[in-house]
Amino acid sequence: MKKTRLTELLGIEYPIIQGGMVWVSNWRLAAAVSNAGGLGQVGSGSMDWDQVRENIRTVRENTNKPWGLNIPMMRPDFEEICKIGLEEGARIFTTSAGNPLKAAPLLKHDDTIIIHVVPSVKGAKKAQEAGFAAIVCEGYEAGGHNGMDETCTISLVPQVVDAVNIPVAAAGGIADGRGIAAALALGADGVQMGTRFVATVECPAHENFKRQVVEASDTGTLITGRKMNMLRSLKNDFTLRMLEAEKGGAGTEELLKIIGDEHNRAELGMVFGEVHEGVLEAGQSAGLVQDIPTVAELFKRLVDEYEKAVAKLR
Amino acid sequence: MKKTRLTELLGIEYPIIQGGMVWVSNWRLAAAVSNAGGLGQVGSGSMDWDQVRENIRTVRENTNKPWGLNIPMMRPDFEEICKIGLEEGARIFTTSAGNPLKAAPLLKHDDTIIIHVVPSVKGAKKAQEAGFAAIVCEGYEAGGHNGMDETCTISLVPQVVDAVNIPVAAAGGIADGRGIAAALALGADGVQMGTRFVATVECPAHENFKRQVVEASDTGTLITGRKMNMLRSLKNDFTLRMLEAEKGGAGTEELLKIIGDEHNRAELGMVFGEVHEGVLEAGQSAGLVQDIPTVAELFKRLVDEYEKAVAKLR
Repeated sequence: MKKTRLTELLGIEYPIIQGGMVWVSNWRLAAAVSNAGGLGQVGSGSMDWDQVRENIRTVRENTNKPWGLNIPMMRPDFEEICKIGLEEGARIFTTSAGNPLKAAPLLKHDDTIIIHVVPSVKGAKKAQEAGFAAIVCEGYEAGGHNGMDETCTISLVPQVVDAVNIPVAAAGGIADGRGIAAALALGADGVQMGTRFVATVECPAHENFKRQVVEASDTGTLITGRKMNMLRSLKNDFTLRMLEAEKGGAGTEELLKIIGDEHNRAELGMVFGEVHEGVLEAGQSAGLVQDIPTVAELFKRLVDEYEKAVAKLR
Repeated sequence: MKKTRLTELLGIEYPIIQGGMVWVSNWRLAAAVSNAGGLGQVGSGSMDWDQVRENIRTVRENTNKPWGLNIPMMRPDFEEICKIGLEEGARIFTTSAGNPLKAAPLLKHDDTIIIHVVPSVKGAKKAQEAGFAAIVCEGYEAGGHNGMDETCTISLVPQVVDAVNIPVAAAGGIADGRGIAAALALGADGVQMGTRFVATVECPAHENFKRQVVEASDTGTLITGRKMNMLRSLKNDFTLRMLEAEKGGAGTEELLKIIGDEHNRAELGMVFGEVHEGVLEAGQSAGLVQDIPTVAELFKRLVDEYEKAVAKLR
């Protein structure tokens, strides 16, 4: 697979970043991805302070390759997580769902590399101005929280590439070597994948969640929270019930009643494996995922697929 | 640009189909695209019977290359338009927004080539079973009416390619040679583009509409009719008003009141150039369109861009 500005910036072999998905991006997955030649990431979104420290310490023990720490800016203790990350020796940070001007001063140092996740050209320009070293530009296809403007990967990526000078990784809808080749054809310097890494041996996601990803079809995901907090996840009893209520014009109070407060629905689904009533965050690329390989097997396959896809273009 | 199963099937030089957009796909645009080496199409969606006959006769006078006739199946007189197309000598047909099992018996003959537009793997399989020779698989990014499942091009295309044996053209979000290279990397045999062809000299769209496409950003389109009849068009006074009403839970009656009955809103915008109150159907790729070249100039550029994009992948 081609070396790019992103592999050079990050010191990695393949231009592939593992998304820092909440609940399912621990040290084990991060170390496996980094050891396979990509950029693994600890996803701090669902971790308390001790867990962040513990995961960083353990990822450092399990790889000597570069790895990253993802910090969603919607965390109320965002600043504290930045401090913990720096103290524990994280040197590559990705931030998302927030203002890059707030994140850069906290994380940008001579020995750190900071990357911001954006859903639009405007966001990309702002991140570049704030001093970020690279961008992940994420389309509407992606799992989890995504942009209200719904711009999709295939048209978003070339527009972002034209608008900034820093390296761009494409995210949303990519799960195989064909998608990586497509992203690079669009002008990206690499990709970020999340859903594909859920269905790997090393991912701490519950086996039931992994199997649901494998079984999902091209129409297997939906968007809930269109009015408040857009989230893409797999269709199941709970998310279809939410969608119906939203379509029927349900207000916040009614929706909160449906959500209930017994459990964190995402933890319930992704960690405890309750696939009917939990929230299983996943992107449209779930339809492309057909098995649960080890991360090393997956990387070998991605390289093969990429080479085959590129060979067909002449 | 690469020869593919699609160029072979259709007898064209480049694997590029011009979408049969309503109101703006007349004989002049179709002939220009076919003469430039793509597959031009007369879009019958907005034409009465005489106009269909007249456009077919004129496109035949203006090109000796292959060209197509697009027939939206939602037309109540769908069967009649099929008859007129066959009588007047159309030999390549694309059908959309309907059941392929109904379309195939009307249009499939020894000397015709029939192509169906689908938004999903299920639709693609159904079209193949019905006897269609190829498929256009169209993502949520596309302008005009699109699929309720919202599957986006970059993950839809490889899934459709894996599911059928017939040639697949990718549509939705593609407006330059990078997008064409990406589509082929995903496994497609070609592309269909609509919005890009609106902003060409030969397109009969009103100059105001063309300029709005050029000025649109990456977040310049929206979806209206999410509950009844999904349509992607440019953001303007009218479509933003519709969206607000829909978000507020407006019922059909209230929405019809907003639409009013003075004009056909699409004709008002796309033909008469009323850019604030008309409907300007366009896809997310509008953000990639920066000028209004001739079709011949555009094809030259697409080939250059394609070659550059492919060269970067090794």
